Amino acid sequence: MTQHITLREVGLRDGLQIVKTIVPTAAKMEWIRAEYAAGVQEIEVCSFVPPKLIPQFADSAELVNRSLSIQGLTVSALVPNMKGAQRGVELGVHKLNYVMSVSEGHNLANVRRTVAESLDDFRNIAAMLRDVPGDQRPLLSGGLSTSFGCTIEGLVSEDRVLELAELLVQAGADEIVLADTVGHGGPHAVRRLFDRVLASVGKVPVIAHFHDTRGLGLANAAAALDAGVRHFDATLAGLGGCPHAPGATGNVVIEDLAYLCETMGYSTGIDITRLVAVRQILARELPNEKLSGAIAIAGLPRRIPQVTAVA
Amino acid sequence: MTQHITLREVGLRDGLQIVKTIVPTAAKMEWIRAEYAAGVQEIEVCSFVPPKLIPQFADSAELVNRSLSIQGLTVSALVPNMKGAQRGVELGVHKLNYVMSVSEGHNLANVRRTVAESLDDFRNIAAMLRDVPGDQRPLLSGGLSTSFGCTIEGLVSEDRVLELAELLVQAGADEIVLADTVGHGGPHAVRRLFDRVLASVGKVPVIAHFHDTRGLGLANAAAALDAGVRHFDATLAGLGGCPHAPGATGNVVIEDLAYLCETMGYSTGIDITRLVAVRQILARELPNEKLSGAIAIAGLPRRIPQVTAVA
Repeated sequence: MTQHITLREVGLRDGLQIVKTIVPTAAKMEWIRAEYAAGVQEIEVCSFVPPKLIPQFADSAELVNRSLSIQGLTVSALVPNMKGAQRGVELGVHKLNYVMSVSEGHNLANVRRTVAESLDDFRNIAAMLRDVPGDQRPLLSGGLSTSFGCTIEGLVSEDRVLELAELLVQAGADEIVLADTVGHGGPHAVRRLFDRVLASVGKVPVIAHFHDTRGLGLANAAAALDAGVRHFDATLAGLGGCPHAPGATGNVVIEDLAYLCETMGYSTGIDITRLVAVRQILARELPNEKLSGAIAIAGLPRRIPQVTAVA
Repeated sequence: MTQHITLREVGLRDGLQIVKTIVPTAAKMEWIRAEYAAGVQEIEVCSFVPPKLIPQFADSAELVNRSLSIQGLTVSALVPNMKGAQRGVELGVHKLNYVMSVSEGHNLANVRRTVAESLDDFRNIAAMLRDVPGDQRPLLSGGLSTSFGCTIEGLVSEDRVLELAELLVQAGADEIVLADTVGHGGPHAVRRLFDRVLASVGKVPVIAHFHDTRGLGLANAAAALDAGVRHFDATLAGLGGCPHAPGATGNVVIEDLAYLCETMGYSTGIDITRLVAVRQILARELPNEKLSGAIAIAGLPRRIPQVTAVA
């Protein structure tokens, strides 16, 4: 039986957070609806950061409300802290994506807290959620940025990533996300780390979040698939970029990742041609952003050669 | 001990053959010298096709002559037929790259011969070379285009690729090149085919030649590395493209491939920063061509995390 791979669209958060143009709520909803219609079943629709920090997310409440009306869509949102988590609960978000960095330097720069403080915050959020009635309780995702390296600290300890993943699960994480935030990982690093983390906390889903900063996004995704990863973050047209490398490519391109999965014998439930067509919304709303991706230009082969087994 | 990976630059042939702008011989030599200085040890400098077919290659004789004066550089050239092979011998080329397609339809469209006729041609070339004195005899490379699929015929039989690789080696090929000419392959297909071909003809080097048409070039290269492939074709800035998909990306980007190899714990002997700088020559000579590649934009990490072992 074909194994299913879940691709989560994170462009409305990880992409739009560095885009200067404010995309109107109606256009965001058009994007969300079109991706869901193309087969994408989970979408991170916003981040609960203060609008004065990132004005792009001023419409988060309305966006969540309207997204929740799409039957079958899993609506998630990034929550940087307890306040964000409480907002998420109030709004009825299905999944709260909490993110902290493995690297102390990156965590301090990003959320002005030590890793220990972020971990405490996560534990408090998990405790708060335990008091929410079951039918209103969102899932809690524990994200670990800079899992494969850090622009500030350089190399990141694999043991430390493993330790933090275990601590997050002990604290109540319903899933773990390992993110190559700055594009430092290579396929062997990916294979080894996911092998270890899946062996340790694989009772919950472990999601791979790759950036294509140095061109290795899909190579890393293939390595993660071989390790047994079945959930990926990605963005339409690779929206995202890297604040430290102007012009650099961003997140893994979701439509190319869906194609990769198909060639490797997996199903994603995504109609790739239909997904590629959603790029028109981005082209219209973000005329100054670089849209990446190969399938959008080359098109699909007449037949996708699907090879499930590795000899 | 770190294993060495050989990257061969094929941009002067596979790249320039579809570029309309004629690059002056002096600029081609500047490109060749700069890449060799950056650590690239083998360069396919031209194709011995009639200049009226591809005017870009009208300077092949001079280019070969001047390239042969670079001490330590392996100079190779594409030869489409016996006549080209004879020219290669006369000029003293180190390696003749003969190319035929696995797919009948593609071979007919490309060289107007059946696969059987191309195979006979290869056998005749190998026989001709056996009469050349040993110290003047070039190596003979046997290239199989469309090894992973064909725009004309669709799927290509893995058994047929294996059979043709074996026939080429029996006929006298000193190396085999498996090319994903149109970007149909995925990592599992790559792993499986190279596993089989290496097991069968691995006494000679088996080279991987990937196009990034659908974004999977580096993912396929990583799979080939895991299969044991130690030789790759690639082009500076991914020069190449696909005649059937305007705007599509071309060959695998050599500087990004070198970075991939480093992250996987291999050495290439290439100074990536110096290699990236060679792109300036392309930017100057081919201002209308799209230069691809991620490392050129994002730069190298301060430290490359090298992970040799797969768990």
